[in-house]
Amino acid sequence: MAQQFVIGVDLGGTHMRAALASTDGRLHARDRTASGRDIEPAEMTRKLVDQCRSLMESAHGHGGGVAAVGMGVPGSIDRNAGLIMHSPNLPKLNNYALAETISKALQVPVHMENDANVFGLGEGWEGSGKGIRNWVGLTLGTGVGGCLLFDHKLWHGDDLGYAGEIGHMPVQPEGPVCACGKMGCLETLASGSALVRGVKEAWKSGRPMTPALQQAVKEEVLSPLEVFRAAQAGDELAVGLFTIMGRALGLALAGLFSALGIRTAIIGGGVSAALLGAARVALDALANRR
Amino acid sequence: MAQQFVIGVDLGGTHMRAALASTDGRLHARDRTASGRDIEPAEMTRKLVDQCRSLMESAHGHGGGVAAVGMGVPGSIDRNAGLIMHSPNLPKLNNYALAETISKALQVPVHMENDANVFGLGEGWEGSGKGIRNWVGLTLGTGVGGCLLFDHKLWHGDDLGYAGEIGHMPVQPEGPVCACGKMGCLETLASGSALVRGVKEAWKSGRPMTPALQQAVKEEVLSPLEVFRAAQAGDELAVGLFTIMGRALGLALAGLFSALGIRTAIIGGGVSAALLGAARVALDALANRR
Repeated sequence: MAQQFVIGVDLGGTHMRAALASTDGRLHARDRTASGRDIEPAEMTRKLVDQCRSLMESAHGHGGGVAAVGMGVPGSIDRNAGLIMHSPNLPKLNNYALAETISKALQVPVHMENDANVFGLGEGWEGSGKGIRNWVGLTLGTGVGGCLLFDHKLWHGDDLGYAGEIGHMPVQPEGPVCACGKMGCLETLASGSALVRGVKEAWKSGRPMTPALQQAVKEEVLSPLEVFRAAQAGDELAVGLFTIMGRALGLALAGLFSALGIRTAIIGGGVSAALLGAARVALDALANRR
Repeated sequence: MAQQFVIGVDLGGTHMRAALASTDGRLHARDRTASGRDIEPAEMTRKLVDQCRSLMESAHGHGGGVAAVGMGVPGSIDRNAGLIMHSPNLPKLNNYALAETISKALQVPVHMENDANVFGLGEGWEGSGKGIRNWVGLTLGTGVGGCLLFDHKLWHGDDLGYAGEIGHMPVQPEGPVCACGKMGCLETLASGSALVRGVKEAWKSGRPMTPALQQAVKEEVLSPLEVFRAAQAGDELAVGLFTIMGRALGLALAGLFSALGIRTAIIGGGVSAALLGAARVALDALANRR
């Protein structure tokens, strides 16, 4: 029997990354190409189909075929209809049946899920969540994604398309206005965007900061990585922003741990490593441990 | 075949209430007797066994037998061992195998659960939660109890004995110190105790309030009901306390609704009716509705 492969696609606001894996989880090929928040649905579909076709050829080269495609997309997803309900990072795709359209073009099943939920499936299958019955997952990047694994299965709640939106738990009622329209969501304090916004606001009000941060703000190239480097160098502003973020993260997790009676969180994403120290301190102080 | 009955017991810090029900949920007899936080385990067991035996006689009078006893107890419960792990309201029973002891005395199975979880089972079986797949339950009384019903079943998390402790979600990080030792738990703002504490603190600092409240504080008989009556009469202090409570409740529920992707909360307990109006306003402003 020919070997079976699957394709995994991570569709983001700046890049679309795809990989060919055998069904035991081993990677055989990867591809990465530019995405963009203003790309029209038809063009986005064409790019994704091209990317998948190229990996399908790789599969043939390995003497096998592609059984299915799995896609992670930021936003709320109607996974049964293969439809993007609402994506703040890819607004042109709102209400577009992306998975269904790609499936027709490729003639293979395409399963679409929220990208943080896909993180949950991956970590549960072959990652840090393997064998752990119940856990909370967080992806810390430009925004904050979340997922819940209950009884080893991804939790979908009432199938409203947004289960696991931990980034939109309110942690500071009078806090900054979130992209979602509410105030003080976790994402407004514990994301890459929050770090960048915090430095920019401090710059406007003349607070002291490292020359590197000042220069990055002036040249409009400030990234979370710059803020992390400043914090590592002991810059008071940057350390303060990470403390706020860690505390916000600890608060949200403490609430979930108390309510759910669980004790495991798995945190990934580009901004995660820097945050964990501060978050752990807040969690220790706040979580229900009795 | 003889009719089958079950006994339900609600063991609280001031009273133990018991009822005899047929297995279709109809009530046939009730009993209520005094409890007390300082009663020793052996005496508490004797009182509970007496209460159950009296209802077992009623069952015989109805031409049937008692198949099992179900007990709700405030605190964290090891339901498999039939053991009370930690009960702030019944501290003498900490680490006492209450259910197991009663079961041996009565020679019927005795199932023990956290009292808010029992509220969840009851509302899910024949109450407001009937037919609703996923919901959050809250019991507002002296404290705040909580439960989670997922897929029509009571959620136990990692079986740590405290799943559903929504009252200990942090909602105001610098808020009042909770009985559990943490700060700003929902219970410190949204419980009967919080109402009473709020009025007492206002009285000490000389804030104006109704003569009825003043008198109740002086005579040390202030109850949540008095505060509710003052709020109904438009007293600014009392209305303010209910607003704080409603907002805290809305915050906790908004966080859970966003994280869990669900949209149903069922609220019971003595203090609940007065709180709902204020809570709904906060929830509308804060919950993830996209």
